[in-house]
Amino acid sequence: MGSLDLNFTDSSLSQTDVFKPLDPEDFRKQAHQMVDFIADYYAKIESYPVLTQVQPNYLRSRLPSTAPYLPEPLQTIFHDISAHVIPGITHWLSPNFFAFFPATVSTAAFLGEMLCTCFNAVGFNWLASPAATELEMVVMDWLAHMLKLPTSFMFSSGTAGGGGGGVIQNTTSEAIFVTLVAARDRKLEALGTNDVKNLVVYSSDQTHSTFTKASRLAGICLSNVRSIPTSRDSDFALSPELLRKVVEADVESGLVPLYLCLTVGTTSTTAVDPLEPLADVANDYNMWVHVDAAYGGSACICPEFRHYLNGVERVESLSLSPHKWLLSYLDCCCLWVKRSDLLVNALSTNPEYLRNQPSESDSVVDYKDWQLGTGRRFKSLRLWLVLRSYGVANIQSHIRSDVRMARMFEGFVNSDLRFEVVVPRKFALVCFRLKSFSRAEPSYVDSLNRKLLEWVNSTGHAYLSHTVVGGVYMLRFAVGATLTEERHVVAAWQLIKDGADAVLKVKGV
Amino acid sequence: MGSLDLNFTDSSLSQTDVFKPLDPEDFRKQAHQMVDFIADYYAKIESYPVLTQVQPNYLRSRLPSTAPYLPEPLQTIFHDISAHVIPGITHWLSPNFFAFFPATVSTAAFLGEMLCTCFNAVGFNWLASPAATELEMVVMDWLAHMLKLPTSFMFSSGTAGGGGGGVIQNTTSEAIFVTLVAARDRKLEALGTNDVKNLVVYSSDQTHSTFTKASRLAGICLSNVRSIPTSRDSDFALSPELLRKVVEADVESGLVPLYLCLTVGTTSTTAVDPLEPLADVANDYNMWVHVDAAYGGSACICPEFRHYLNGVERVESLSLSPHKWLLSYLDCCCLWVKRSDLLVNALSTNPEYLRNQPSESDSVVDYKDWQLGTGRRFKSLRLWLVLRSYGVANIQSHIRSDVRMARMFEGFVNSDLRFEVVVPRKFALVCFRLKSFSRAEPSYVDSLNRKLLEWVNSTGHAYLSHTVVGGVYMLRFAVGATLTEERHVVAAWQLIKDGADAVLKVKGV
Repeated sequence: MGSLDLNFTDSSLSQTDVFKPLDPEDFRKQAHQMVDFIADYYAKIESYPVLTQVQPNYLRSRLPSTAPYLPEPLQTIFHDISAHVIPGITHWLSPNFFAFFPATVSTAAFLGEMLCTCFNAVGFNWLASPAATELEMVVMDWLAHMLKLPTSFMFSSGTAGGGGGGVIQNTTSEAIFVTLVAARDRKLEALGTNDVKNLVVYSSDQTHSTFTKASRLAGICLSNVRSIPTSRDSDFALSPELLRKVVEADVESGLVPLYLCLTVGTTSTTAVDPLEPLADVANDYNMWVHVDAAYGGSACICPEFRHYLNGVERVESLSLSPHKWLLSYLDCCCLWVKRSDLLVNALSTNPEYLRNQPSESDSVVDYKDWQLGTGRRFKSLRLWLVLRSYGVANIQSHIRSDVRMARMFEGFVNSDLRFEVVVPRKFALVCFRLKSFSRAEPSYVDSLNRKLLEWVNSTGHAYLSHTVVGGVYMLRFAVGATLTEERHVVAAWQLIKDGADAVLKVKGV
Repeated sequence: MGSLDLNFTDSSLSQTDVFKPLDPEDFRKQAHQMVDFIADYYAKIESYPVLTQVQPNYLRSRLPSTAPYLPEPLQTIFHDISAHVIPGITHWLSPNFFAFFPATVSTAAFLGEMLCTCFNAVGFNWLASPAATELEMVVMDWLAHMLKLPTSFMFSSGTAGGGGGGVIQNTTSEAIFVTLVAARDRKLEALGTNDVKNLVVYSSDQTHSTFTKASRLAGICLSNVRSIPTSRDSDFALSPELLRKVVEADVESGLVPLYLCLTVGTTSTTAVDPLEPLADVANDYNMWVHVDAAYGGSACICPEFRHYLNGVERVESLSLSPHKWLLSYLDCCCLWVKRSDLLVNALSTNPEYLRNQPSESDSVVDYKDWQLGTGRRFKSLRLWLVLRSYGVANIQSHIRSDVRMARMFEGFVNSDLRFEVVVPRKFALVCFRLKSFSRAEPSYVDSLNRKLLEWVNSTGHAYLSHTVVGGVYMLRFAVGATLTEERHVVAAWQLIKDGADAVLKVKGV
């Protein structure tokens, strides 16, 4: 790169008068230093409080308000990361992280991400980096095979133009949004109108909040977003009978059913909507059915869980986030569709400056037309390295190991008379709480559980989260962090019991 | 992690019976190997053809159709990357890459990305990783200062709740989309309606195609997306007078002006819309004005380019992509808004399982409410490392060096009578072509230039792209790849001249 402009006269800049921000040997040296920094962090991750204990503005108040004019040495930056950044991190990779759904990781995925960054291949269309597009097609078919999806969701069954296939989105939100606009535009075209005001979308009250958000973004009236109640009797799964009633009432009012979002593994309790009978209802009304299997879908690579996807052949699209349970780091959401032409109709652009012969020959996939943005990274490398480095066998074993640890925790809860499991465990999440007892107000029991959660999290030795479902406040113990071993689950249970002792004692129970 | 299930009996799995996908010492060893692999790639990147020469399906036909059941060694994977992936990559980091806008990179950004991956901190709200949220706020303010944005775009000027500030989006498409829905929802609320059919959006015919896409996604009728013509006379900038005429005609027809998208550095020719007079027109009609400065904005950290942002104090939002010119790898789009409450109104969700005390106290920023998705990575680390490792001085010098090389190339073109510069150069892109000559049909001259482009790109020694503006086919020579030095520009010009010799000779001119 050229030399500095003459109007820079600061003598301390002289050492940088040939600025080479990507000198391969500097890169090699500094990247090796970073590898050691990260390996050391992983080695001692257990020593940090899982949930950070900092207060709002802790970091903003410590850092300068403007960027430095002159370079700072890497060692200063490493120091600041240790001194200022790490204390404000909630350590999602800690083996004692049991909150939300853990975001799983692995060495292979890290290597894949390094490669993705390395090439910086911008794969907006095929020609911009054929390997990026084709490897994604290959890996999406591999995962589809692992999930035993029907061939109608695979590239291998059809042509590049308009058939089934998969694409990596950033998040479930994006996967739901792009399929929703594809469904919307198809429906509006069929109705011969531009007017969305009669279109109605459906899900259960357990569906992720991003579904309502996506619906609003796509212009669906909030009053036409149906959130159908579920109950503890059906483990919070959506009832086909109830769905049909709601849809029928809408149709009688002159509204048009558009889209049904089903979930395999809801965020609160991992409830599973029964795909087969629900898709049958939706298909009677020509709705697009999407399955959000962000968490639960990964388990379906094991034969003993695959039944949760029964009926998937009747839906239009399915998404699953390998960053949740397939060891792949954020962000990575796999979306499969049966009719990619409907995505392309809603999302394609064709500016002159991107025109090229392979795209015009219709012999290739241009992934920019399957997503919101234009630019896109070479994300499939992460999944490719995970699947090859570990093999399906080890990944299945990883899922089973998490489930086994969750089952063990469930056993602990059941063995202590003060606690109860609130919703039957399906995957690796246990929803539990301090039981109600005679004469206790429900709100009082809720407050005890809230105190228990605060007590546990404030120790820094484990991090759990909560939810409220069916009016009941409960704690969520999600096993899945890559580094979690049985001893961490055992220690967390001991901590929770200590917390119960403390909370119940203070409360004088 | 636990051992394999008993139903796996394959003896070759016995070595992996304790599956540890993130053992820190394995990580250290393998990540070091990957660093060397990448440093070697960077060292020899010039030896690869810039534009890949593979044919559609080249990779799909070479890889197995299903994932391996058993692990494969890292060396096999490295071999396959070299043998099968790299040949199908268009080398965006090659110093001979002059197509589109180059995607700039640096060692510091690579280290930042490694750290971001390392922590895998999911920063959907403040508590989920305070450091991730606060560092992003700090870095966005740093960049705002570097661009001399008004304080109304900065966190430092206001409160967390509702004032100005910045956020990192994935792409410009997302930045435009989220501001457009914020504008839409504000307007619909003001009008007391759910009906979008009267809302109109405006831009020039040089605006990136993603603006039309974002408008369609947000439910704006395609017939209400105005693409106002520009001409060579005004260097393809949008005319305030013409904008006013178009808006007035719409208002007279009963339509409602909603959103104006201006560009600082258009994709085809780096045209700059004059912000000040255009914002004045828009403000007369209460439109939201967004400035897409994806490419050109970065140059505005140098005082001599800052005038292109004059008038920015009159707009609602501005976006700029550091992956284009601030050395930061994909994907990274910085968006600043004056009123974050309008983003939050359009994008917030508040499910029980994410509720927490800091969020409810309104004392913190929850970035999930500023973007489409819920999950988000710790992206600010990349920019933080770039700004600190290099300092503002070196980054300015990098911009200037690219501009200087483009100016040199412009000089080469002007010195050869067979060529012409079609649009005056503003930044580091030169739009040029083989000149027309007496008796030549325009379409014939276009075809000569098309042949020239094909000839150059097929050599693998340089990669340029094209555009058509004002009916004229032209070649684009964009300087900006991090590794490009003067000698690469000189060699590319020699190659182009050789191409001209070949094309003009064959054509018998």
